[in-house]
Amino acid sequence: MTERLSSLFLRTLRDDPAEAEVASHRLLLRAGFIRRVGSGLYSWLPLGLRVRRNVERVIREEMNAAGAQEVLFPGLLPREPYEVTGRWTEYGSDIFRLQDRRDADHLLAPTHEEVFTLMVKDLYSSYKDLPLTIYQIQDKYRDETRPRAGLLRAREFTMKDAYSFDFDDEGLERSYQLQRDAYERIFKRLGLEYVIVSADAGAMGGSKSEEFMHPTAVGEDTVVMNDSGYAANVEAFATLVPDAIPTDGLAQPVVHDTPDTPTIATLVDVANAQFPREDGRAWSAADTLKNVVLALTHPDGSRELVVVAVPGDRDVDDKRVEVAFAPAVAEPASEADFAANPGLVKGYIGPWSASGPVLGDESRTGIRFLADPRVVDGTQWITGANESGRHVSGLVAGRDFTADGTVEAATVREGDPAPDGSGPVQLIRTMEVGHVFQLGRKYAEALGLSVLDQNGKRATVTMGSYGIGVTRNLAAIVEASHDEKGIIWPAEIAPFDVHVVATGKDEAVFAVAEEVVAELDASRLEVLFDDRRKVSPGVKFKDAEIVGVPWILVIGRGALEGEFELWNRATGEKQPIRREDVLQKFAK
Amino acid sequence: MTERLSSLFLRTLRDDPAEAEVASHRLLLRAGFIRRVGSGLYSWLPLGLRVRRNVERVIREEMNAAGAQEVLFPGLLPREPYEVTGRWTEYGSDIFRLQDRRDADHLLAPTHEEVFTLMVKDLYSSYKDLPLTIYQIQDKYRDETRPRAGLLRAREFTMKDAYSFDFDDEGLERSYQLQRDAYERIFKRLGLEYVIVSADAGAMGGSKSEEFMHPTAVGEDTVVMNDSGYAANVEAFATLVPDAIPTDGLAQPVVHDTPDTPTIATLVDVANAQFPREDGRAWSAADTLKNVVLALTHPDGSRELVVVAVPGDRDVDDKRVEVAFAPAVAEPASEADFAANPGLVKGYIGPWSASGPVLGDESRTGIRFLADPRVVDGTQWITGANESGRHVSGLVAGRDFTADGTVEAATVREGDPAPDGSGPVQLIRTMEVGHVFQLGRKYAEALGLSVLDQNGKRATVTMGSYGIGVTRNLAAIVEASHDEKGIIWPAEIAPFDVHVVATGKDEAVFAVAEEVVAELDASRLEVLFDDRRKVSPGVKFKDAEIVGVPWILVIGRGALEGEFELWNRATGEKQPIRREDVLQKFAK
Repeated sequence: MTERLSSLFLRTLRDDPAEAEVASHRLLLRAGFIRRVGSGLYSWLPLGLRVRRNVERVIREEMNAAGAQEVLFPGLLPREPYEVTGRWTEYGSDIFRLQDRRDADHLLAPTHEEVFTLMVKDLYSSYKDLPLTIYQIQDKYRDETRPRAGLLRAREFTMKDAYSFDFDDEGLERSYQLQRDAYERIFKRLGLEYVIVSADAGAMGGSKSEEFMHPTAVGEDTVVMNDSGYAANVEAFATLVPDAIPTDGLAQPVVHDTPDTPTIATLVDVANAQFPREDGRAWSAADTLKNVVLALTHPDGSRELVVVAVPGDRDVDDKRVEVAFAPAVAEPASEADFAANPGLVKGYIGPWSASGPVLGDESRTGIRFLADPRVVDGTQWITGANESGRHVSGLVAGRDFTADGTVEAATVREGDPAPDGSGPVQLIRTMEVGHVFQLGRKYAEALGLSVLDQNGKRATVTMGSYGIGVTRNLAAIVEASHDEKGIIWPAEIAPFDVHVVATGKDEAVFAVAEEVVAELDASRLEVLFDDRRKVSPGVKFKDAEIVGVPWILVIGRGALEGEFELWNRATGEKQPIRREDVLQKFAK
Repeated sequence: MTERLSSLFLRTLRDDPAEAEVASHRLLLRAGFIRRVGSGLYSWLPLGLRVRRNVERVIREEMNAAGAQEVLFPGLLPREPYEVTGRWTEYGSDIFRLQDRRDADHLLAPTHEEVFTLMVKDLYSSYKDLPLTIYQIQDKYRDETRPRAGLLRAREFTMKDAYSFDFDDEGLERSYQLQRDAYERIFKRLGLEYVIVSADAGAMGGSKSEEFMHPTAVGEDTVVMNDSGYAANVEAFATLVPDAIPTDGLAQPVVHDTPDTPTIATLVDVANAQFPREDGRAWSAADTLKNVVLALTHPDGSRELVVVAVPGDRDVDDKRVEVAFAPAVAEPASEADFAANPGLVKGYIGPWSASGPVLGDESRTGIRFLADPRVVDGTQWITGANESGRHVSGLVAGRDFTADGTVEAATVREGDPAPDGSGPVQLIRTMEVGHVFQLGRKYAEALGLSVLDQNGKRATVTMGSYGIGVTRNLAAIVEASHDEKGIIWPAEIAPFDVHVVATGKDEAVFAVAEEVVAELDASRLEVLFDDRRKVSPGVKFKDAEIVGVPWILVIGRGALEGEFELWNRATGEKQPIRREDVLQKFAK
């Protein structure tokens, strides 16, 4: 098939649109692939739609090859199934809700677990019907707080979501692996570099969960990884717990007056000045223990204060806290919380245990004290004395205090040891491009999806969930594959196989170009033909470079002697090619 | 590609689902093509999705062949463009509206005129850029008062909508014709019988408008047509106006006491008894003039009463009234209207003119009196005398009264003469399956879409609008093509080319079937293979018949001697076929 630039619904933009912050957004707008219709809402122009269909094709082919069957659900769904699973409430203001003319609640589905589950319940009833994996490529909606970066965080976007249904855990493991393998093939075909990381299941509930993370500067996620193969989401990173230290012979703790120590840095300065370390080395932030008060709201609505202790050279990481306390939602304790708990001496909080006080006022009893895993028995800390204006030094974990538990809340840092012993880690900015996830029986239980087993007894089905963003990944590909001149499409998803540019004013040259284009078209190639007469070669080349078709075939004056020029968009290489060699070059 | 019934996500239903009233709804559910998710919301199972994609493919191929370019808009749109054109208000409660987390109004688009127009405005600026026709195949939403009949009237449905953009009227005419021709090809390929009728543009505004109407008992529309080629929507039917009659020598009107004549039938009886016709023939309803009072609400909110006069053997037709008075909305006058206008003597209303009374009270002055086109000068009528309990006979149009205008409000009946003189018409139940429509400059004007002409002056673009329902037409095809056993898919959109049914318990037979299926698959045929081992032949045949693949290849005992049986689903014909002839039979 051939499209001609003389009639193609396309206008490239010379200047960067003000609305675009990141390269993919900027280039997809400038090269005429998409247009903004509203906040986080995009239209697709002919070129954009071609690439989008190609991404969908790759995903569809691999899904079908993995034995998944395609279905399609509505985007508009009634509230009821989401009410049953509790997600109508859980989603809060992250979803679009609406009422129909009879005031019945509906939502624009952000994901489709509920209706997939109900559809299988409707059709299947026996263990013999399983395994089953079904998927859809479909538009989804999320009412993002801050839609940004074009297709990277839109409010209407397209995903492939698949669900597997198995009779038992071994079946789920097999279905999961099939999808995981398919995802690897998909990302390879799309030309998207990825790291597979353990991910916390978060609000989805369930067991095994892995994310396909694509390293990119515009990513909003951080992956912790090293060259020895360790990789995890920052939320899933587990601290390598040091060995406990014998407490025999350690000095007793000493309480100091430390009135002006609003920060860890000031505390360290005061400590080095007032009670220097005996061996002469300076105290550092790592020697202090920072105690942060958080307020948890549990799913039943109840509220609980907890104190989280992390080494003073680290902060409490919001994402890790979110996962550590899920399904409870954590937020910093309020002034009212401090006021209601006079035992929480702001700025001077120290360790204690819910079972009893360690230092200071007994009124703190009942508030859980959770420590970083590094706070092992025998470690010594400078920390708050639970009295205004006072800190304590030489406070020994396991001897002077015992935490009510550990929590993975501290920030992860470059150089931290990987939990598998594979050595120090790096932190990489990434974007989630795929997610495979063993949901287990959560949705099947909530919605009553069971089958009869070999003995005629009901058994709840176990499910897996597998998602890939179509439109988001398309943008990720542009982020990963462009240069200062424009987009460089991987051949697999390029809008066309070859971009033929006819130059000059000689109609004989255009006649040759027409013939070549007809031959390429007849060979089932997708051809973009710049047949414009009154446009300069410079403009045509600029358009070709920004649009990003992998091969640019320039047909100019030499054409009359059978001589063309072939440009490789990715490498910039320009080579002469004889007319008679063109077809073979592109033969599929 | 081959799908196997042993693993295909499909369960046919033996019984008719209670929810389904019409054949397409019943069969698409029973044959496992769709499932209901909510009122007017349907999911697509693998078989349904295959047929749907085929319908989309046919439409897409014909659109591309007609030079239209595919784009894609979001389903969720901001309010603003619809505010500019006034449609945010006009749509009333027929659309889904919602607010995002910032309380910004949005809608689920029922059509996309506004954003198509704005996109062209964004990209194009010169007359040289035109003509352009762009289209999308996309999900639309309407908050129907009464979703019904499955896909025939759903709340989420898929349409192909195209818009043409031209510099001048001649260009629009050409673009319109290209789409109209493409529609004819599409319906022929889909196997959908159609009549092209003049249609009133209704709420859309604009000029030339034609609908592709598919004759079907489940249709909600009526087409007026005859064998000589006349065809129009009942709304667009124009009455053939009879010649005027000389009034010279006609008797003067006579007023009669007619106290008990609540209906036309009782009036006719009283007339025949009290003042029989001089020539001895009986009076009939056609000799009376029925005067109906309607209240119009104009777009500016003002309210106006009008009297509509139709021959007593016809009623006022709601659809024709709707179109005749658009953009005003008509409803029957209320008791309060009669109370406020004592000159309107209910049951005894007769003709008058807004410019003055004919009979009775002067207080009627100012109310428009509109007559059916058949009320030509010289026609004589028995009608109300504008006095309680009295009628008048021999009232002559053009002599005794003159209407303020004519109105096409009367019902159309079988046998009415076509306006083009082609003879009596029939009334056919139909369903709209496509609509081509010259929008003109309405949207371009409202949204400021203009281009520079040859002289550098701004000129407003003229548009056409072209819509085909994808999911609705799929259901229409089932309505038109099924029998008591199930669906009969036209080959062009059938989910598979051939349904291979292996029967019996002999593994050798199944082995032969596997080989044949592999050969068909290798020949690029789409094969549905019933490879189920523990299912009886009877059940397999029933499944094949309800699913409706055009060809059913039965591979049973004879297979070991190379003898199969080939069933034609449409004709029911069953013929032996030799194994060696199978491939050639299906060769594409």
